Amino acid sequence: MHSTTTLTAAALAERFGLVLRGDGETEVDAVATLSGAGPRQLSFLSNPRYRSQLAGSAAGVVVVGEADADGLGRTLLVARDPYVAFAHIAALFDPPQAPRPGVHASAVVEAGARIDPSAEIGPLAFIGERSVVGAGAIVGPGCVVGEDCVVGAGSRLVARVTLVRRVRLGERVLIHPGAVLGADGFGLAMDGGRWIKVPQQGGVVVGDDCEIGANTTIDRGAIEDTVLEDDVRLDNQIQVGHNVRIGAHTAMAGCVAVAGSAVIGRYCLVGGGAGIVGHITVCDRVVITAMALVTSSIDAPGEYSSGTPLMDNRSWRKSAARFRQLDALARQVQRLDKETP
Amino acid sequence: MHSTTTLTAAALAERFGLVLRGDGETEVDAVATLSGAGPRQLSFLSNPRYRSQLAGSAAGVVVVGEADADGLGRTLLVARDPYVAFAHIAALFDPPQAPRPGVHASAVVEAGARIDPSAEIGPLAFIGERSVVGAGAIVGPGCVVGEDCVVGAGSRLVARVTLVRRVRLGERVLIHPGAVLGADGFGLAMDGGRWIKVPQQGGVVVGDDCEIGANTTIDRGAIEDTVLEDDVRLDNQIQVGHNVRIGAHTAMAGCVAVAGSAVIGRYCLVGGGAGIVGHITVCDRVVITAMALVTSSIDAPGEYSSGTPLMDNRSWRKSAARFRQLDALARQVQRLDKETP
Amino acid sequence: MHSTTTLTAAALAERFGLVLRGDGETEVDAVATLSGAGPRQLSFLSNPRYRSQLAGSAAGVVVVGEADADGLGRTLLVARDPYVAFAHIAALFDPPQAPRPGVHASAVVEAGARIDPSAEIGPLAFIGERSVVGAGAIVGPGCVVGEDCVVGAGSRLVARVTLVRRVRLGERVLIHPGAVLGADGFGLAMDGGRWIKVPQQGGVVVGDDCEIGANTTIDRGAIEDTVLEDDVRLDNQIQVGHNVRIGAHTAMAGCVAVAGSAVIGRYCLVGGGAGIVGHITVCDRVVITAMALVTSSIDAPGEYSSGTPLMDNRSWRKSAARFRQLDALARQVQRLDKETP
Repeated sequence: MHSTTTLTAAALAERFGLVLRGDGETEVDAVATLSGAGPRQLSFLSNPRYRSQLAGSAAGVVVVGEADADGLGRTLLVARDPYVAFAHIAALFDPPQAPRPGVHASAVVEAGARIDPSAEIGPLAFIGERSVVGAGAIVGPGCVVGEDCVVGAGSRLVARVTLVRRVRLGERVLIHPGAVLGADGFGLAMDGGRWIKVPQQGGVVVGDDCEIGANTTIDRGAIEDTVLEDDVRLDNQIQVGHNVRIGAHTAMAGCVAVAGSAVIGRYCLVGGGAGIVGHITVCDRVVITAMALVTSSIDAPGEYSSGTPLMDNRSWRKSAARFRQLDALARQVQRLDKETP
Repeated sequence: MHSTTTLTAAALAERFGLVLRGDGETEVDAVATLSGAGPRQLSFLSNPRYRSQLAGSAAGVVVVGEADADGLGRTLLVARDPYVAFAHIAALFDPPQAPRPGVHASAVVEAGARIDPSAEIGPLAFIGERSVVGAGAIVGPGCVVGEDCVVGAGSRLVARVTLVRRVRLGERVLIHPGAVLGADGFGLAMDGGRWIKVPQQGGVVVGDDCEIGANTTIDRGAIEDTVLEDDVRLDNQIQVGHNVRIGAHTAMAGCVAVAGSAVIGRYCLVGGGAGIVGHITVCDRVVITAMALVTSSIDAPGEYSSGTPLMDNRSWRKSAARFRQLDALARQVQRLDKETP
Repeated sequence: MHSTTTLTAAALAERFGLVLRGDGETEVDAVATLSGAGPRQLSFLSNPRYRSQLAGSAAGVVVVGEADADGLGRTLLVARDPYVAFAHIAALFDPPQAPRPGVHASAVVEAGARIDPSAEIGPLAFIGERSVVGAGAIVGPGCVVGEDCVVGAGSRLVARVTLVRRVRLGERVLIHPGAVLGADGFGLAMDGGRWIKVPQQGGVVVGDDCEIGANTTIDRGAIEDTVLEDDVRLDNQIQVGHNVRIGAHTAMAGCVAVAGSAVIGRYCLVGGGAGIVGHITVCDRVVITAMALVTSSIDAPGEYSSGTPLMDNRSWRKSAARFRQLDALARQVQRLDKETP
C-alpha cells in the first residue's frame, strides 16, 4: 500500500456520519486487518469470528458496531454497519484508477469505432466496427471489443476481456479479466442425426454499476437480448446462458451456472457453484445456498438448498447406499405402520 | 438486425419442404420471438410454454408443428420439427461471417506457419511455428495458435482462443472466446513428498463440425491424443481432461467436467454442471441430468441422475440431518420388521 | 514426437536407480502407451486397469512395479513406483522449452518494468509498471502482466495468462493459458439497497514449483494476500477466492471452488468440482471426493464426501421424493419403535 492519503479519525467520523470515541486527532493513512494493523492504520470488526483479535490489535482506529463499542479504551468509529463504513473508508485510500486518455500505439481501432477523447484504450486492445467507448471508460490491455458494442461512461474492462458482438454496457460497469460477454448461446437442433446450429442473433445488455468477475461468461440472446439489470454483481467463472434476465441488485458467488431463458429476480443471493435450470422464474429476494440446484420456479422469497452434508467417506458410503433404497425403505415403514396394532 | 434478405412464405416453404397455410406472398426479412415479432418477421412455436403467445403475436409468418396448426387463421409454415425449420430459416437471415482473406498488420505469424491465402488472420493474433490455417478459416482478434496446430478449412476461432500445441481441428469447427485447447493435462506423481510433473506430450484432435464454448478447456493427452469426434457440441466453461474421448454428436451443457481418460459415447446429452470421473466408459445415447456425478461406467442407454431436490432451507436441514443417520434408520426398520409379529 | 534423444535401458536403469531385467542394450527414443508403443519406445504399467495390455505390447522397454515383474520375458525396468519412474524418464524425452531471451518486437513493456536479460517476453505480451521478470522466465504470447508483479526465475506463463496486479510468483511456477491471478476479490456490502464495492488492496503470493491450470482464477486479497504455498498444483477452471491460503503440496482437480478466507492444509487432495465455503479451516492430509461441498472446518485427516450416488432417473426420482420426507419418515420409525412391544 503506497497510499498518499492521510486522514484523522475525526475527519472520517464527520465524512461518513460515524460516532467518534477516543482521540479524534489519530491519523491513519491505510486500512489493515485487525491482526495486521499498525498505529497509523484503520481496521474494522464486522464478522464476529474475529472479535478475539480486537483487544490485541495495534490499529490506530477501529470501526465497530454499537454492540462491540463499549469498554475498549481505544479510538473507535462506531457505525450502524461497520462493514459498509469500512468499505467507504477503504475506498478513500484506494481510489479507482483514472483513465489515461488516448489510444495506445499498439491498440487496433477499426474505422467507424467511436472512442471518447477522455477514454483510455490500452496496449494491444482491439475495438471493432461501429463500437462506442464512452467518456472516462478504460479498455485495458489485451481486451477485444467486437462489433456493435457500447462501453458506457466510466466503465472499465480491466484486461483481456472480450465483448464479442452487440454487447451494451451501462455506466460504471467493471469487468475483470477473461470474462466473455456476447458469445453465441448454446442453441442446437437435431436434424436427421446431426446437430444444426440455431443462429444466435441477440445481444447482451448490462445495466449501470454491474461488476462481472474473471472468466465469467454471458452469452448473447438467441433472438432478443440477455439482460443484467443495474447493480448486478457476478463473481468469477459464472456462466449465464442466452436470454437469461438477472434482476437489479442480485449477487452471485463464483461458479454459478444459469441456463438459458431463466429469469432471476431482484436482490437475490446465489451461493457458489449453484445451478439454475433454464426457462424458470425465481422471484425477488431468494437465497440459494452453495452448490444447490434450482430445477423449477421459485415463487416465495426465502432460502433454498439441496444436497447432502459432508461426512467421512466411510459413513457417507453407507448413507449413499441407503439413499438408493429409500423408496423401498419408506414402503416398508408404511407397511409396518399398518401392521402395528 | 440489419438483414438485407427478404423472402416470401411460399419461397421458404419450398426451400425447406414445409407446408404453407395462408398467404404465401407474405414477405419476411428477419426472425423474432412470438411476443416481439412484427408483420415482416417470422417466428416459431416449439416449446409448449410459449403456446399462449401465439394468438397475440403480430408475426407475419409463424413456423408451427402439425399439432398447433389448426384454426389459427394466419400465415403458417407447418413443419415436422418447427425448431429445426426455424434454425434453417434463421440462418438465411444471419449468414456466417465470411473471411476477409489476409493477415492483419498487427498479427504475428512465425516463419514456417502456413496460412491459406483465403484464410483471415485477425488483429493481434499469433500463429506459431509449423502451424497450418486452412482455406476460408478465420483466426479472430487476440487468438494464440501455438506450434504444430492445424485449423481446418472453414473453421473459426472467434476471438482470444488459445490452441496451445499439437491441436488439430477438423473442418467447420467453431470455437468461442477464451477457450483453451491443448494445455497440459493434470499429470502428477508424488515422489518423496513432492509432486513431480508427468510430461504431457499428446495433442488434441477435434473432428469436423464441432462447436466449443467460451472459456471451455480441453487438455492435450498425456501420451496419445484427447479426441472429440465429429459434430460434438460443447457449451461454455466445460473442462475436458487429458485423453478423454467424446463420441460424435454428443452435446454437453455449460460447466460440465470430464476427468482424464473417460470415454463418452455418441449421441449423449450431458446436463449443466455434471461431472464424469476419469477412466470410465459411458455408452452411446446416455442422458446425464444437471449437476449429476457419474462415478462408474454406464453400459445401458437411458437417463441418469444424482443429487437431492431443492427444498426450503429449514426443511432441507432436517432431511440432511437424517441423511447422516440413514444407515442406522434402515437397520432400525429391519429390526422392527423382524420383531413385528 | 520428434525427440532426438536416444537412451538404452541400462542407461535409464542407472540414471534412476531402477532394476534392469532383460536386454540392457535396448534403445528407446520416445515414450508411449502400452497399446501404442513400438520396439523403440518405452512404456509403463502403473494402473492395474491396463495390466491386460502388457502381454501384447510391442514396447521395447516397460517400467513396472515389482509385483508385475515376473515371468514376462521382456526388457523391463523394475521400479518401486513405476509412475514416478516413468515421469522422470518421460521428462528426458520432453525437456521444458528453453527461453529465447529477449523481448519480442510486438510486445509492450512499460517503462520501469525490469526484464532479466535471460528471460523471454513473447509476441503481443504486455508487462506493466514496476513489474519484474526473473532469470530464465518465459512470458508467452498474449500474456498480460499488470503493475507491481513478480515472475520468479524459471517460471513460465504459457500464453494469454493475466497477472492483474501485485501478483508475486516464486521460482519455476508454471501457469497455463487463460488463468487470471490477482483480479479483485468479490467484496460487497449492502448500503441502503445498493451494493458498494469493498476495495480489494491485497495481492497474490504463489510459492515455488506451483502449477496453475488453464482458466483458473485466483483473486487478490482484500487487505492481506491470497497465498499458495510451495508445490501447490491446481488443475483447470479452479476458483480461489480472496485471502484463501492453500498449504504446500496440496493438489486440486478441475473446477474446484474455494471461497474467501478458507485455509487449506498441506498435502490435501481435492476432487473435481468440489466446493469449500469461506472462513473455514481444513487440516493437512484431507481428501475431498469429487463434487463434495465442505461447509465447515475439518480437523482430522481422512477422506470426506457428500452427495448421492448416480441412479437411473426413474429410481432416482423415487429416492429424491423420499428425501424430502426423510424427517417425517424417521419420526414415524421412532414412533413405531416405541409402540412395538
